Formats: sequence, structure tokens, C-alpha cells
Amino acid sequence: MRIAVDRESAIPIHVQIARAIREQILKGAIPRGGRLPPTRRLAESLGVNRSTVVQAYQTLWSEGLVEGHVGRGTAVRPAGTGSRTPGACPPWETLFVLEREEEDREVREFVRLIDREDLISLAAGLPAPDLYPMRDLREVLDDVLAREGKSLLHWCPVEGYGPLRERLAENVPGATAGDVFLLSGSTQGISLLTRVLVAPGDFVAVQSPTYLGALQMFRSAGARIASVPVGEEGIDLDMLESVLSRTRPKILYVIPSFQNPTGVTMGLETRKGLLEIASRHAVPVLEDDPYSLLRYEGEDVPTLRELDTRGHVLYLSTFSKILVPGFRVGWLTAPSPVIERLRTAKHLTDLFTNSVGQAVVSEFIERGFLDKHLAAVRDAYRKRRDAMVRALRRHAPQLAFTVPEGGYFVWATLPPGISGRELLREALTKRVSFIHGEVFCPDGTGRDRIRINFASHPPEIAEEGARRLGSALRALRRGGRRGRPEQEVSARPIV
Amino acid sequence: MRIAVDRESAIPIHVQIARAIREQILKGAIPRGGRLPPTRRLAESLGVNRSTVVQAYQTLWSEGLVEGHVGRGTAVRPAGTGSRTPGACPPWETLFVLEREEEDREVREFVRLIDREDLISLAAGLPAPDLYPMRDLREVLDDVLAREGKSLLHWCPVEGYGPLRERLAENVPGATAGDVFLLSGSTQGISLLTRVLVAPGDFVAVQSPTYLGALQMFRSAGARIASVPVGEEGIDLDMLESVLSRTRPKILYVIPSFQNPTGVTMGLETRKGLLEIASRHAVPVLEDDPYSLLRYEGEDVPTLRELDTRGHVLYLSTFSKILVPGFRVGWLTAPSPVIERLRTAKHLTDLFTNSVGQAVVSEFIERGFLDKHLAAVRDAYRKRRDAMVRALRRHAPQLAFTVPEGGYFVWATLPPGISGRELLREALTKRVSFIHGEVFCPDGTGRDRIRINFASHPPEIAEEGARRLGSALRALRRGGRRGRPEQEVSARPIV
Repeated sequence: MRIAVDRESAIPIHVQIARAIREQILKGAIPRGGRLPPTRRLAESLGVNRSTVVQAYQTLWSEGLVEGHVGRGTAVRPAGTGSRTPGACPPWETLFVLEREEEDREVREFVRLIDREDLISLAAGLPAPDLYPMRDLREVLDDVLAREGKSLLHWCPVEGYGPLRERLAENVPGATAGDVFLLSGSTQGISLLTRVLVAPGDFVAVQSPTYLGALQMFRSAGARIASVPVGEEGIDLDMLESVLSRTRPKILYVIPSFQNPTGVTMGLETRKGLLEIASRHAVPVLEDDPYSLLRYEGEDVPTLRELDTRGHVLYLSTFSKILVPGFRVGWLTAPSPVIERLRTAKHLTDLFTNSVGQAVVSEFIERGFLDKHLAAVRDAYRKRRDAMVRALRRHAPQLAFTVPEGGYFVWATLPPGISGRELLREALTKRVSFIHGEVFCPDGTGRDRIRINFASHPPEIAEEGARRLGSALRALRRGGRRGRPEQEVSARPIV
Repeated sequence: MRIAVDRESAIPIHVQIARAIREQILKGAIPRGGRLPPTRRLAESLGVNRSTVVQAYQTLWSEGLVEGHVGRGTAVRPAGTGSRTPGACPPWETLFVLEREEEDREVREFVRLIDREDLISLAAGLPAPDLYPMRDLREVLDDVLAREGKSLLHWCPVEGYGPLRERLAENVPGATAGDVFLLSGSTQGISLLTRVLVAPGDFVAVQSPTYLGALQMFRSAGARIASVPVGEEGIDLDMLESVLSRTRPKILYVIPSFQNPTGVTMGLETRKGLLEIASRHAVPVLEDDPYSLLRYEGEDVPTLRELDTRGHVLYLSTFSKILVPGFRVGWLTAPSPVIERLRTAKHLTDLFTNSVGQAVVSEFIERGFLDKHLAAVRDAYRKRRDAMVRALRRHAPQLAFTVPEGGYFVWATLPPGISGRELLREALTKRVSFIHGEVFCPDGTGRDRIRINFASHPPEIAEEGARRLGSALRALRRGGRRGRPEQEVSARPIV
């Protein structure tokens, strides 16, 4: 094998050596299975350090051109040893990364549920389009495009549109614009933080029940889920202590206000206790806070981020629940080492977020339109909650639930012997949907619960939804299912 | 340990058992390190199958509550054995998932380069904002918001805005809307396909040089990169055969038209040869095609997707290069098993894409505005290319390059003894930037190359950029660097 090394070249010697050997392998000049010279001998003959040759061989190994066997040195990797069937279309199923197929299917089924047009969906966690402030949004959109359209349509910093970062920082104690990171929806925040913090086999601690999307993201990263019951206080602190001390999770994921799906809000003392326990175990807290501005009665409670004095809280929020989901504007605050990692992860995921939506939200806040809109939706959602509660009491008196002080959801307990999944199957035939409780519960509870969104629809449609739900409940009881355990065989979720 | 099993309950027995044991562990009723009964004995005493108890124990294991030791049975996991320092702010650096720190830093440095306002950037692969069709875009945007604003701002199917999927399918032979998947920029397409197809240690084959962002995404997924030189034909088919047969990559990633960074376009026979080789080895081809509509002279060549008869090609494109990047509208076509997987991956990444941008693009095409805009930018970019070529020949005659027939880039060879990185360092002091060639080259070549974007700026600014570049070249040669190898010690990239 002839290798010429040019010491005057700007190209490092190991690159020159790798390149020369690569060419000879690819041209077939080194026979199939032929061995490369031992690194020591080649280094001597070229008059270079042995480590230089080792580096060149490592490059060739990483490219798949050579393979190493202990005691036999480095040999050219034989061609044509793979086993894929050639010619026909690629055998996709053998090419995919192995994933949790069951989990995948559940996601797909949920997406399909949202797609169905023929039913009243009390399922999705979406706001009410009839309340969208279209006139104000169109006015703001055209104004920002006229003012800075070319720059908005050109590109956006990875960390987000500057003026909105500044505006958001103003509302977070002790934060500057540099602590704020904008997201393509808050889902992307959970996804990026998972990428940055969670390796397969790591623990993530969550409330049970909790937001399904977060569970799915943690699981798809190979996390082991440790859970703590929500209870009446939002989280059971004794169990939290026990779980954190045993599992040392990478993230404690909580929704302290108007929790999804239970509607429960953590009290001040519980929040302080949670922070004390998390900081004692050095566990970062991911506070997901999409709903706290949607309080319909009672007193505000400070966020964990506001109570945090030690930099343990990653605070995540979104405009999807209080304004519109379609602009995909979520945001988080985090300490600078985390922001730095997120910047890289975001760059490798989708480069940067559409800045038009961010600029509209920023200007919408600036003009006072958000405050006006929040007042309007709080008023409307409170009425919708009350209408839904009345309708459920009239049409589905078998359901037990606590009236939430804010947010989107009623979390209802079914009469004994009826499971949420079974009821959903029946309800779909009556053209109404909701989400059955067990999918929110990593600890296997929740089979006797359902989540009902009261905010999405005007009161008359919500009432009709409640009527259909009541009719599904009665049909199930007439069918004599009371007390009969569900057959585990048909475990495939319908939604 | 007392466990009550309710056979009439809708809750599966293994869940009941796990729940009962969980409660006792978390309440401290089972002593630290205490053992659980052997599965066989517990199963007998409860009168259930042993597999039911095994399933319950597995649940507790996955939650971190118990641990198993061969021969010693299952024991409660002791609390408080972790080693993190409590109290102070979380030790972030010990919590992050280990990644390629060097790679990360390179991404961050690039992002910063784009951020600098004081220089003429010939670096970024961005279009020219002075050509953005703002009047047409604002008109279309306000019209689609007036027509379907509420639905656009509500949500969007995971796979994208229906009318745009249909419009795009019309231009791809044999495709239907169901084969089209919309993306938040084509970068997200590479990212999602990597997630779906590439496990750590898998091979991905690429051209060398190639798009840096793709290299970074493949590497961050733990892929091993096998590369094939671009050469004059776009790819060396003999080497491709050799590389595919040795490495059986999960993806062959190519940019056949006006390649980034070389500007080379693959000829028809090379394209056919590539498809024949890829299908013989059952390797999926990811065709990244952002530039083919930007041809300034010569004859169009069919895309790989158009030539593919066996379903091997995943075709990826974007509106970022031909219209505006800020709307983040990219798209791909793929066989249905791949679309199905992408739907799940997208759902777990950011739920769905902002549909306003998609609707604007769709309507923009419908009204014939895109054709009009393409004619205008082709004309302008051809003039800018010619102006840049003239300016480089005048101000930097030491550079050698081939004039590309389309796209954005001139790929220039430096005079002997000067490296691109060294020149960039000098150029930044003259307030002009470009990208040094080696970052595009997984095979370690490219140190004597630079990539220059000729499209971004009006001719007079591009000319000033070329003048500064020439001045940096002269400064380097005056400094007597000719023939001196670069010091490998300062390997940190400046861009």
C-alpha cells in the first residue's frame, strides 16, 4: 500500500492517511477481507506518531470501511454481506427504529378522534373558536407585517422573537429576556427538555393522573415513570418525598394550577413543601402552567417559579389555551445552562420558530388586547362551566365530580362497575366523546374516571353533549353491565 | 403484607396488587430493604396466576420502588441512596444527556455568526429579503384569515393543511395528498426521518461535501457517517456501490440539484445509476431538493422521485428558498408506512404545524403568485450570480470556481497553502463572512474550499463583500502564510 504524506499541506496527516486508504479500498485496490498494516509498522514507515495512524484507522472504522478484530488487526470490511432483500420497495418495517408500538398506536388513535366531524367532542383540550378575537388579531397581524414583515418572514433567532422575550420576562420575577425561550407550542418545550435531560432508563416523576402528551414523550425517550397521586392537595408530599429519594428523577413534572385532567389546584403550603423536597433531592421541577390565568373564582396562588429561590424550576407556559393554539406560541424560562442546551436542541429540530405568530402575540399584549380577551374568556368559560355542571347534574346524575375553580376540565367519577373506556365506546355511538381516565394514570388507576372539556363549545352544544353522555350511561346500565369486569382481551383503545 | 383482591372490579388484578404494595412501600409499612414475598407464594395465597404477580412486580420495578437480585428475590429499593448535592441549584451539567459537545458548540457558533449585524454575510443559506413579495403576501394573508381564520388558528392536522397537501401532490407523479406530509421547515423533515429510521450505530450515507445541518442531525442521533465524493457528476457511482454494499445505511442522503455547498447538479444517467444501486441494496434515498426550481440556465433534469419506480425515494422540499423561510413551510412525500411513523413522531415533537403559513402558501400558489415570484427571483438571482462572479474575478482572482447553473452558492478553491478557516478568521476582521469548506466534508477534505452565497444581497452589496474577501486574501498572503500548515492546536471553529 502506497501512501504519500505531505507535511507542508494544510490537511492534517491523519486525514491524508485515511483518505489514501479510503480511495484504495473503494477502488478495490485492497482485496476483500485484506488486512491493513499494523498501526505501529505503518507509523514507522511513514515517520509519524502511532496515534496519527490510529486516528486514521478510527475514521475508516466509523465510515464502515474497515473492521477490527482483537489479535487479528484491522481488515477491510467485506462488501455485500447484508441481508436485505434487494430490488423491491424497501422493507420499511425492518428499517424503523424499534419503538413502543402500543404507545404509538394510542397517539394515532387520539389524533383520529379529534378528526371526526360527526360528534360533539368534549375530548380535546382546545379552547373555544367562537371566542377567538378575530378582528383584533387581523388588525395586529396586518400592522406587524406592514411594520416589519420582511424581517419576520426572513428568519428568527433560535431562542425566539426578541420583543416577546422581553415582554414575557417582565411578568416573571427576577427573569430577564435571556431566561426566556420561545417554543413552537409548549409541547415542544417538553419534547426539547426531554431530549436534553432524559436518557433511556432515567426516571421522570409525574403526578398521577397527568397530561397524556407529557407521559408519551417521556416514555418515547425510554424514561421510567415514577408517579405520585394528585389527591386533594395537588400532590401527596409524603409520597413525593419517598419517590424522589428512591428514584432521583431527572425531572419532576407537575401542573400545579387547574391540573390536567383533574382540575385540582395545589395550595400555597403544598407548593412550598414540593419545592423544599425537590431542592433537598436536587431534582429539577418542570412546572407546566397553561391554565393559571383562567381562574373563574377564588384567590390566585403564586406559581412554583415565583416561589423558587434556588433555580430549581423550569417554568413552561403557552398562548394556546388563553388565546389561540394555531399560532404555536409556547415559552419557558430556565437557568442559562439549560437555555444553552435548548438552543442546540431546537436548532437540530426545526432551526427556528415562525416569528409572525410571536410578533402578533407580542403586539397583542402591548396593545392591551390580551387583558381584554382574558376578561372576556374568563367570563364566558365560567358560564360554560356552570352550564356544563347543570347539564351533567340533570342528564347524567350518576356522575360524581368536584367543580373546578378554573381551567377547562371536569374530572368525573363513574358509577360502580362501569369503566371509562366502556362508556366511551357507547358514547361514540351517541356521537359524543370525552377522554377515559386511565390514559392519564401511569399508576394504573383512573378506570372509573372520565375527563370532560367544558370550555370548547357554546352552552347549548355542551348541554347537548351532556344529554348524549347521559343517554350512553343509561344504555350501559340497561345493558346490565353493572358489576361486570371489563374483558382485558379487547385492550385496544378506541380513542 | 395484606392485599385484598376484588374480582368483581373493573380494575385488572395485577393493577390492584401493584397498587396495594405501592401504598405500603410509600407509607413505610414495608421496612427499608425489606423483601416482597416470592411471586409463586403470593400468587398461591391470593389464588391468582403467577404471571399476574410477576406483572405487578414489574410495574413496581419500572417505578423504581423495588429492585430485583438473582437468587435474593425482590426487595424494596432503599431511599436516599443518590449522590446529588442537595439544596443548592441543580447540578445541571451532571443532569444533561451526554451529547457531542464539540458538535453542539459548532452549531452554537454558526448561529452566532448569523446574528452579527456588522458584517456582510455571504454565509447563511438564506434568500434575499429585498425580493420578498410583501404586497401579494399581505393580501393573501388577510384574505385567508377572513375566509377561514378561526379554523386556521384552532388546530391543524398533524400531517398538514389539507388543501396544500393536495396542491403539492399534483406536481409529484403518482402521488396523492395522502403521500404528502407538511413540516415546520424541511429541517424538521430530516430530524423526524432521523428519529424514525436512525438508531445509534446505524450508518447513514451522504455526499461529501453536503449540507451541514443534515450531518449534525445524523451525528446527534449517533449515526456513523459513510460518505461518497460529489465529484463532477454529483456522486461517484463506483464508490457509492462500494459504500452501500459495505455499510447498508438506513438512509442515503443526497441533494441532486444545485447541491449545497458545491452547486453541482447530478446528470440524468447518474441519477438512474444511483437509483439502481440504492434499490439493489434496498437503501432508502432521502432526496433533499430545495433549489431545483432556481435554475438560471440549461435544461431541467427529472428529480429522483420522478425517476423512482420502486418507492425508494423520500422526497423533501421547502418554500424557504423559493419564497420566504419565516413561514416555516417544508414538505415531503413518502410511502405510507413512513408517513404513519412520521405522524407519531411529529405528534410527540410539536403536535402540529402553524397552519396560517401553510394556508398562505397554498393560496399564493392557487392565485398564480408563486409562478410570478419564481420568474422574478430567477431573473434577479441570475443577475446576482453574474455580478458575484464578475466581482470575485476582479477582487479575488486567486479563487478558482465553476459557475453554477442555479441555486445559491459558489464553491471556490483557495490558492495553495491557505485554509478556509484561516481566511475566515481574517475575513471577519474585514467585516465579511462565508462558510469554510471543511464543515461540509465528513471525509476530512474541504480545507481549501469556501462556500459563498451570491443570492442574499443586492449586487452592490455582494460586490462590496467580494472586495472585502479579496482584501482578506491579500492580507493573508502578505502575512507570508503561503505554504504554512495551519496549527491544529486552535481547532475551535470561529463560525
